[in-house]
Amino acid sequence: MLTYCVRTALSRRAFTCKTSLAQQHSRGRCSASSSETDPVGTLLQLCVDRYYVSPGESNRERLQRGVSCRYGPLGMELRRNLLEQWWHSVTNSRTQVFGINTLSSSNGERDGLGQLRIVESEYLKQILEQPELRKEQLIQKVQMYLQRSPVVRNNLLHGALEQFVPSLEMVNRKLPFGLAETALCFQPSGGSGCTAEVTQTSLVWFCSPRTSSQWLDHWTRQRLKWWRKFALSPSDFSSSDVPEEELEEATSRGVRISYSFPWGQEPLETLWSRGDTELLLMHKGARSKLQCRDGRKSVPHVVSITGNMDRGLLAFLSSSLQHQKREDSKQRLKHRKVLKLHPVLAPVKVALDIGRGATMELRQVCEGLLQEFMEAKISAWPGYLETMSTSLEQLNTKYDEMGVLFTVVISENTLESGLLQVRSRDTTIKETMHISEIKNFLSKYISAAGNI
Amino acid sequence: MLTYCVRTALSRRAFTCKTSLAQQHSRGRCSASSSETDPVGTLLQLCVDRYYVSPGESNRERLQRGVSCRYGPLGMELRRNLLEQWWHSVTNSRTQVFGINTLSSSNGERDGLGQLRIVESEYLKQILEQPELRKEQLIQKVQMYLQRSPVVRNNLLHGALEQFVPSLEMVNRKLPFGLAETALCFQPSGGSGCTAEVTQTSLVWFCSPRTSSQWLDHWTRQRLKWWRKFALSPSDFSSSDVPEEELEEATSRGVRISYSFPWGQEPLETLWSRGDTELLLMHKGARSKLQCRDGRKSVPHVVSITGNMDRGLLAFLSSSLQHQKREDSKQRLKHRKVLKLHPVLAPVKVALDIGRGATMELRQVCEGLLQEFMEAKISAWPGYLETMSTSLEQLNTKYDEMGVLFTVVISENTLESGLLQVRSRDTTIKETMHISEIKNFLSKYISAAGNI
Repeated sequence: MLTYCVRTALSRRAFTCKTSLAQQHSRGRCSASSSETDPVGTLLQLCVDRYYVSPGESNRERLQRGVSCRYGPLGMELRRNLLEQWWHSVTNSRTQVFGINTLSSSNGERDGLGQLRIVESEYLKQILEQPELRKEQLIQKVQMYLQRSPVVRNNLLHGALEQFVPSLEMVNRKLPFGLAETALCFQPSGGSGCTAEVTQTSLVWFCSPRTSSQWLDHWTRQRLKWWRKFALSPSDFSSSDVPEEELEEATSRGVRISYSFPWGQEPLETLWSRGDTELLLMHKGARSKLQCRDGRKSVPHVVSITGNMDRGLLAFLSSSLQHQKREDSKQRLKHRKVLKLHPVLAPVKVALDIGRGATMELRQVCEGLLQEFMEAKISAWPGYLETMSTSLEQLNTKYDEMGVLFTVVISENTLESGLLQVRSRDTTIKETMHISEIKNFLSKYISAAGNI
Repeated sequence: MLTYCVRTALSRRAFTCKTSLAQQHSRGRCSASSSETDPVGTLLQLCVDRYYVSPGESNRERLQRGVSCRYGPLGMELRRNLLEQWWHSVTNSRTQVFGINTLSSSNGERDGLGQLRIVESEYLKQILEQPELRKEQLIQKVQMYLQRSPVVRNNLLHGALEQFVPSLEMVNRKLPFGLAETALCFQPSGGSGCTAEVTQTSLVWFCSPRTSSQWLDHWTRQRLKWWRKFALSPSDFSSSDVPEEELEEATSRGVRISYSFPWGQEPLETLWSRGDTELLLMHKGARSKLQCRDGRKSVPHVVSITGNMDRGLLAFLSSSLQHQKREDSKQRLKHRKVLKLHPVLAPVKVALDIGRGATMELRQVCEGLLQEFMEAKISAWPGYLETMSTSLEQLNTKYDEMGVLFTVVISENTLESGLLQVRSRDTTIKETMHISEIKNFLSKYISAAGNI
């Protein structure tokens, strides 16, 4: 019976998905929206209202730019789920992917334009305040201090290249293998002082020179499949070769995976075939230290796969927001906004609320159920804690906009018969279920959705 | 039968744990070690040899200081498990704990001694290279640029205090509630240029003024219980009040949870009762914005719980390393080092190796099993990929030092009968098990250990 529920619910989901796509295509991009005038503003406002991101103009602006912003509880959980899915997908797809953790700042010799460094402002002020120094001496002292200050990373590639040698013994000098990391990186702003932080994902793949092109194709397919897996309209995620004139130094081929935002395409993840130049440079040309056993003795080529998960998060939010119009029982036109995030990504899987009945007793039932959900790692929203009298309709609107998968209502009836009401975000259908079944129902629903 | 296995294995674990403690007490601290001369060196070297941290003197020094270092795959996974357990424990213990994600740098007005700022070195150099500037103008320009540069956080408290107001609506102005975050923070070095990064955990708890002292006690108990849950010798983790002369500004009471390292006690987590001063300061004294409904209308008091998970990781490594002596069958004295990390924390749960038989076919069985483990999120070590001929004894030594819970050996026998050999790290006992049972056995073992 449970399996049946999951299947029908999922096929319903697939169905909604298709109709929505069809609607989009027939009416043109975003015109199905009830907020046709400003789809971007609607999305950003919803993110603020529904605890995805914190309020504030600069924070909204960061969100839209695809860099880290102050995330509220739901945004934080969505980011967490995204990173976990990325990790799971990359480390489980091949047995030879190992996780690492490098440092975000290092006292390296690397030097480049627009480099960010961490300075101790008090120490720098002390230098400036030495009255005995001549101008030239002052400049020299500040420059020397700058040179000594740690450089903040703007990508995870260098950390992985550094870790290549210590990893060789572990893999017994056998190719291919990969080093994976997710962490914050920093982007210079060009003097404005508004440094941006980005949640990056990085897989650096070391393979034999003759297979690097195939591996680039392999990872492109894998990554595109991953992005599309969680999308309501998969075709909004696409891949394209990087034009020759945009190739980075030391790279021979590049592929970008992008999402079509309402304001245009933006890259989410970039794959580069990088050859061996940077690896040799990092290890000062010590070929013998770098050679692997792959038939011949060769220095491996590097394929890098770098994602921006802050922009990825916004892409999934944008992709999930549906605007629906329908007539209610009194033939009034109702607008409904639903954040149809994939069940695996949805930050809240279930909201717990109470209906009519003895409040104290109903709350106790909720607490018990919440504990059960928590132990099963099903993230739940304690809606029953709110004392404001909100109508069930208002609650549903709120939960739909939060992207909550299911709403459970505990009422007097539950105390008598053990039956509760479960409403699905995607079908809006309410079903009655026994309280002993709900945890398993949710677990199975989520894991089934993850395996499709 | 499986339950029986788990129980006996666990009670064996408990037993080993007790004997080891007894040994330690009877022989004095660390003297049970086979490397009595340098227990610290032995621990750090093992961490490097067994892929917990990367080689390098500065990296070892970072590890010992209890700050972030370059972690290898096992260290990375251990840190991940630790953070997940912390998260699970803090967010599930009370329904009113919400996760947030703040920014690691911000253009605030906060100013203090030893503050770290991110500067764009190229931009600063451009200022220095303006020949027309007099010395005073130059100093002024650099100071103005510094003032505008983003400050890097050294704790997560301020981010949470900032997020207090946006969170109020969510909790319907009801106390108590908490904001949780785990992230990197930066510590100044006093001009040496060696900025340290620390993986911090932070729970900022907002409660009514009259309950803040009780909450401090509540969280102290909870946190100490948590640290001890994963320790081989729980008594090495202890809590103590912060002496009055060491109280931080704005705090009225503090408690430290510490671990007794071979080189002395070091704090892992600190709890402070902070009153409302900082919250008022952060929100410019706007009392009406901060008031909550807790019977009276009062500005909440703050209890902060801040942990250093890099040092926590080292504490668990140190606490888990056991040195054992035993005679082998030929009455030779054998030294054995085992990293008895708690099953939930152990970065590798199972290693897969092949014994005698047709290598190709055995490998295929391993690949299948590995896939099964990965899908069940049981982290496995692909030992069968190594082509070097290592004796089973050498393998066991290696896996014991890595802290691998179980070693599974697939041999010709497995191809014929489906039976494989499972060796336990903690008991060193080898059992025969059917290949179809191993995944469930491991899952149950790990989750049973997590629930104790």
